[in-house]
Amino acid sequence: MKWGHFDNKNKEYVITRPDTPLPWINYLGCDDYCGLISNTAGGYSFYKDARERRLLRYRYNNIPMDRGGRYLYIRDNKSGDYWSATWQPVQKDLDEYSYECRHGLGYTKIRSEYEGITTHTTYFVPLGENLEIWMIKIKNDSRKPRDLSVFSFVEFCLWDALNDMTDYQYNLNIGETSYSDGIIYHLSRYRVDEAYFSYFACANGKVAAFDSQRRDFLGDYGSLEKPEAVINGKCRNSIACGWAPVGAHQVKAALKPKEEKTLIFVLGYSEKMADAQRLVKKFSSEENVKRELEKLNKHWEANLAKLSVKTEDEDVNTMVNIWNQYQVRTTFNWSRSASYYEAGIGRGMGFRDSNQDTMGFVYQIPERVKGRIIDLASTQFERGDAYHQYSPLTKKGNGRGYSDDHLWLILSTASYIKETGDTDFLSESVPYDTGKPSSMYEHLERAIEFSGTNVGPHGLPLIGFADWNDCLNLSVHKGKNKAESVMVAMMFVAACTEMARLAEASGRNDDIAKYSTLAKEMSDTINEKAWDGEWYVRAFDDDGNPVGSSKNKEGKIYLETQPWAVMSGVADSERAKKCMDSVKKLLATEHGILILQPSYSKHYPELGSISVYPPGLKENGAIFCHPNPWAMMAETMIGHGDQAFTYYKAIMPAARPSQIHKTEPYVYCQMIAGIDHKDFGEGKNSWLTGSAAWNLIASTQWILGIRADYKGLIVDPCIPKDWDGFEAKRHFRGSDYYITVRNPKHVSKGVKSVVVDGKTSGSNLIPAFTDGADHHVEVTMGLPGQG
Amino acid sequence: MKWGHFDNKNKEYVITRPDTPLPWINYLGCDDYCGLISNTAGGYSFYKDARERRLLRYRYNNIPMDRGGRYLYIRDNKSGDYWSATWQPVQKDLDEYSYECRHGLGYTKIRSEYEGITTHTTYFVPLGENLEIWMIKIKNDSRKPRDLSVFSFVEFCLWDALNDMTDYQYNLNIGETSYSDGIIYHLSRYRVDEAYFSYFACANGKVAAFDSQRRDFLGDYGSLEKPEAVINGKCRNSIACGWAPVGAHQVKAALKPKEEKTLIFVLGYSEKMADAQRLVKKFSSEENVKRELEKLNKHWEANLAKLSVKTEDEDVNTMVNIWNQYQVRTTFNWSRSASYYEAGIGRGMGFRDSNQDTMGFVYQIPERVKGRIIDLASTQFERGDAYHQYSPLTKKGNGRGYSDDHLWLILSTASYIKETGDTDFLSESVPYDTGKPSSMYEHLERAIEFSGTNVGPHGLPLIGFADWNDCLNLSVHKGKNKAESVMVAMMFVAACTEMARLAEASGRNDDIAKYSTLAKEMSDTINEKAWDGEWYVRAFDDDGNPVGSSKNKEGKIYLETQPWAVMSGVADSERAKKCMDSVKKLLATEHGILILQPSYSKHYPELGSISVYPPGLKENGAIFCHPNPWAMMAETMIGHGDQAFTYYKAIMPAARPSQIHKTEPYVYCQMIAGIDHKDFGEGKNSWLTGSAAWNLIASTQWILGIRADYKGLIVDPCIPKDWDGFEAKRHFRGSDYYITVRNPKHVSKGVKSVVVDGKTSGSNLIPAFTDGADHHVEVTMGLPGQG
Repeated sequence: MKWGHFDNKNKEYVITRPDTPLPWINYLGCDDYCGLISNTAGGYSFYKDARERRLLRYRYNNIPMDRGGRYLYIRDNKSGDYWSATWQPVQKDLDEYSYECRHGLGYTKIRSEYEGITTHTTYFVPLGENLEIWMIKIKNDSRKPRDLSVFSFVEFCLWDALNDMTDYQYNLNIGETSYSDGIIYHLSRYRVDEAYFSYFACANGKVAAFDSQRRDFLGDYGSLEKPEAVINGKCRNSIACGWAPVGAHQVKAALKPKEEKTLIFVLGYSEKMADAQRLVKKFSSEENVKRELEKLNKHWEANLAKLSVKTEDEDVNTMVNIWNQYQVRTTFNWSRSASYYEAGIGRGMGFRDSNQDTMGFVYQIPERVKGRIIDLASTQFERGDAYHQYSPLTKKGNGRGYSDDHLWLILSTASYIKETGDTDFLSESVPYDTGKPSSMYEHLERAIEFSGTNVGPHGLPLIGFADWNDCLNLSVHKGKNKAESVMVAMMFVAACTEMARLAEASGRNDDIAKYSTLAKEMSDTINEKAWDGEWYVRAFDDDGNPVGSSKNKEGKIYLETQPWAVMSGVADSERAKKCMDSVKKLLATEHGILILQPSYSKHYPELGSISVYPPGLKENGAIFCHPNPWAMMAETMIGHGDQAFTYYKAIMPAARPSQIHKTEPYVYCQMIAGIDHKDFGEGKNSWLTGSAAWNLIASTQWILGIRADYKGLIVDPCIPKDWDGFEAKRHFRGSDYYITVRNPKHVSKGVKSVVVDGKTSGSNLIPAFTDGADHHVEVTMGLPGQG
Repeated sequence: MKWGHFDNKNKEYVITRPDTPLPWINYLGCDDYCGLISNTAGGYSFYKDARERRLLRYRYNNIPMDRGGRYLYIRDNKSGDYWSATWQPVQKDLDEYSYECRHGLGYTKIRSEYEGITTHTTYFVPLGENLEIWMIKIKNDSRKPRDLSVFSFVEFCLWDALNDMTDYQYNLNIGETSYSDGIIYHLSRYRVDEAYFSYFACANGKVAAFDSQRRDFLGDYGSLEKPEAVINGKCRNSIACGWAPVGAHQVKAALKPKEEKTLIFVLGYSEKMADAQRLVKKFSSEENVKRELEKLNKHWEANLAKLSVKTEDEDVNTMVNIWNQYQVRTTFNWSRSASYYEAGIGRGMGFRDSNQDTMGFVYQIPERVKGRIIDLASTQFERGDAYHQYSPLTKKGNGRGYSDDHLWLILSTASYIKETGDTDFLSESVPYDTGKPSSMYEHLERAIEFSGTNVGPHGLPLIGFADWNDCLNLSVHKGKNKAESVMVAMMFVAACTEMARLAEASGRNDDIAKYSTLAKEMSDTINEKAWDGEWYVRAFDDDGNPVGSSKNKEGKIYLETQPWAVMSGVADSERAKKCMDSVKKLLATEHGILILQPSYSKHYPELGSISVYPPGLKENGAIFCHPNPWAMMAETMIGHGDQAFTYYKAIMPAARPSQIHKTEPYVYCQMIAGIDHKDFGEGKNSWLTGSAAWNLIASTQWILGIRADYKGLIVDPCIPKDWDGFEAKRHFRGSDYYITVRNPKHVSKGVKSVVVDGKTSGSNLIPAFTDGADHHVEVTMGLPGQG
């Protein structure tokens, strides 16, 4: 069964049936105002912080699925029949109701046709504004005049989303609304004049009546499917003072045959009454709305112009040119805070998460990445490790004890400098969490120092509460604090290697050998202690026993340490091939690479929370999408272009069967149910996942092989042998590089010749011209030295 | 509009229309297993702790109102039509659907009639069991054979109710079910074999099919009104592994005309598979179910037999004999944790709350009160104050900084000793929160010590974070910690007076004068500093300015300090009359006594959170029901029986108009919207409120005037003048006292003569006979010395 298709010309995903297996959502807003919107207009909005400043109430895990949203009811005043412009919540029978949703970049458009009435509703957030526009065009496509009413509806959240769902003593008494000139105001929970508030207006229509108390609009036992006001065709002009504040307008729309009417609704957050009124007035003009939508489109075009490719695989083009880039920006903006699976209240900006997100996003807007890295480094402890996350409103850190967080800071900083050449950043002053300043370089040094000295019995870094795998809590049950992480050891090697290169790039020559030596020593330790014969073990538990070893009954092999052995250079070429072959043999499936095998069939408290999950879900043997691209990258490093590409396509949303995968076909999800689960192949937890950044890195930097480095742009593809080549455009340090790759010998890897701006080059490291001009790069693949 | 009436013969409240203005609920279970159930079978169950061990998912503040429950669908397999045995969730039109709900003591019965099919469903928790029974009788009252199916439905909560609504990453992956022999099991979130689990069985019917994965029963966008399985007449035998575990059975019921079939469903919590199976088997017998229901009824009859009255006012009889006692036990059991307004996740057993609850409940089961007092005292700090609440599972305390908590411990302990005569309790060893043991008496001494020494500029106790009025946070904004509570000062006087009496009763003679002096000194200070001319001020703010004074622009008079001045003996008779007259003049309304006037019209941060509420709601000028009985008690103390009774009836649920009051007519609510609110008279936050205990105390101990004292039972009524008298039965220290009060002179107060067991007594303090025999007390009211 298919629910939609890509429209790459318009950079849209087109959903043709509203009853997608799960809500397929989009994000509105690029700055402080964010709206989540599903294909049937479900979702909510918030200002800056999804917990503290939530505008709309959304009920997660609800019955029916996906309720709370931006609803528009159309009522035929003659028949009394009514329906939704976005299918939900009324859910008219699809035999008589036609529908299309187009999720675009920062906007969503939904069309409905029912009983001769066609609606086109566009939702978007104008750039730089803290508001969202709903523009609905209603057209009478029937042959008789129609007397219609339009009812808008939102339910306000009482600002603090956690309190909103837990403290009814308080909440059922604080909600207050007021109304004037077509604008419904939902006041601050603190009753402070203009401290902050939200407003919901019908900007360009005459409001016949309104409601702002929920029970007056819905009726006492009323539902969103059957709101009393819509059934009766009459709002009651209610004001909320306690209970549940909502916003609903009733607007008349009498339409002659073929006549069309446009209504514009504005929902916004504000701290000044005059601003709200001015903005409602501004957006009463359809021209102004169209102009803002056009601006938004241009903004995205400019962003996407920094990286585009043309390959033989249309799915690759779709993902790389549009959706993967779009998702990467979304994860950069909102980390793991607010999605349809992250409730927006528990997690701020993750340290580990955000560092990795920057690595996928840095080519788009490097300045924003620099700012983010500074925010992150400012929550690092003086001893080198760091808070696990921080609040986006206050920037204060919280959570600690993870052994990997701080090492990602080295990789993200290196990535930023490779993109920009800004080695001066290493000398900039950035505070620790105590406020004490030091150079950015010292921040990185201390991160190394922490991991290099907090080691266990095998000389490998202690795992602490957990490493990247949140559920592998090997020191929690017994509390000895002796468990060690082989993955962190490998990350340490990679980070030391990068430190040596940073030292070289920034003229800190004394440090080059120092960090190279640290890398070598840890690498030797890993190879001595953690090689299991066919793969690398994952960790050592509190008693020094291996985890992820052939000696274990379950959880014999883990994915993470195989690609990291290759990516960090720990594995020599024989072990690299061997461990990646083990991945292929023991972990790879048609739906992607499993994180471990066999899944734990029962609870092992000494392993932490990993076996709390049923076999095949989450860390207990699912296809975790985040480390899958690491395997793709490792395969390209050992020259296996076909294998890398097979892995890439297996989890690529655009290439997956929706009836099995269920989540959005245009964005990555965190995990796919593993082979030990009855719903093998079912995707879960879409949108806010490190999978977005790493898949973009794996595909563009390692399969297509175009990646920034300190001195320039490397072009070193590792592609399927049957490709004839590909084209790419890459913006880098102020210039646009037009790259053509040819593969006449049908190899996977190997650059035979490079021509830059018409001149043969001796290297596939293309210089950073920084001249703002266009540059043309022609790469021919083949075995070096062959004709 | 009326939605129901009392049936006192059966001790039931009968609801005749399902669409009550708010859900009208009941509590099932007297021990560890608790179920909340509304008049349309909404609600949820938990084991011991409403947060950590929640069995069913309930969506607070939902659309539609009151969803999540114990649902039974009846389907006519010929027509395909289907309906609910409890109206919700299908909500058939009331023109064709007839309904009755009977909330009884520990059980709820719901009848439905639709299309010739009558159902009677009984829900209850057998005494001592951790399970609930749903027994449905389905009768064919039509003239043709009917082919019916019954579908049961519950949605399981993933145990930790807070996590269940916040952490979807985790939750959507951990839910697991299994099925065998008609029993659906919902497993522990930790996958530990038999650690704990819930089960849902059709005990006596052949299960045709089942579902335990929500989407399989409801359909992807399905609702509880329109579950796909019911529409199709077919469950899918689904097992949950992640997503949303539910329990649904499909059972055939082919009925000839007049034929009746009984189905018994069992929902339980268990830690041993064999126990669950045994219990399901036990309750497959209708006889066993009936026997358990009978036991439950006997249990309640025995409880209520300890106190009963017969007055001229039927509402009084209803409330005192049945519902107020029932509510008091419910508040004693569950403090403020789980109601339809307390979400069961934020608050454990309140220190202040539980102490007061025991004072209303102690005559029912004094041993349980003693245990509770020990639990509470064990969370007291060595310096004398205490944690604000404790977790019912772990008994660990949390929250602090309140200035009143510890003083309530003295009043509750005194109340327990007055009821039982158990002065030895004062010598028992009870630990502080540190584990250090001391005598119970020393606990009380330290409470006095704390409040007597932590005083502010006027010599009055510091208010700390707050006193009884949680929202009066006078030291939070400026942080000087100088604000003082006049109410706590009065409580201190009352507590010192009670300490002197406890000292006397337990032979600690040296302490009598000590505590009497402390009481006198504080009393003098209050009268010197806190008398405003017509009433007592409420507090002094951080700058030493009065709050609740004629000098204030808003919040000129607060209720609390007026009755407390009288109850504590601080006010002499002139001031007592004056301040209570001010209450009558400035605070009393037809719907009860306002907590303050005028309400704060804007936010005053220096007053704390009180003015965050809109005028007329909650602490900002609502009719707070908790202090209303204090005013009743104070009026009886100054002899105003009519005034006390007027106050009593104003907020008495049984006497209030449901179309205005909206909450249950059989239990008290926390507050009623005040005169400054547009919905003046609307009740809010029913069931778990200190109003229950205090109204029972005010009515039985002060209006009817029958109260336990150290040496015996006092009978000292203060009733409406037009009453001819009343009768009462009171169990006290092992004996039953049959009390007849006559009021031939139509006075409010004053006992002219007392005859005990036929002999004239010189006192209205009836001795504690403790002989297990019945005793007859005849009291004649009138002015002493008059004929």
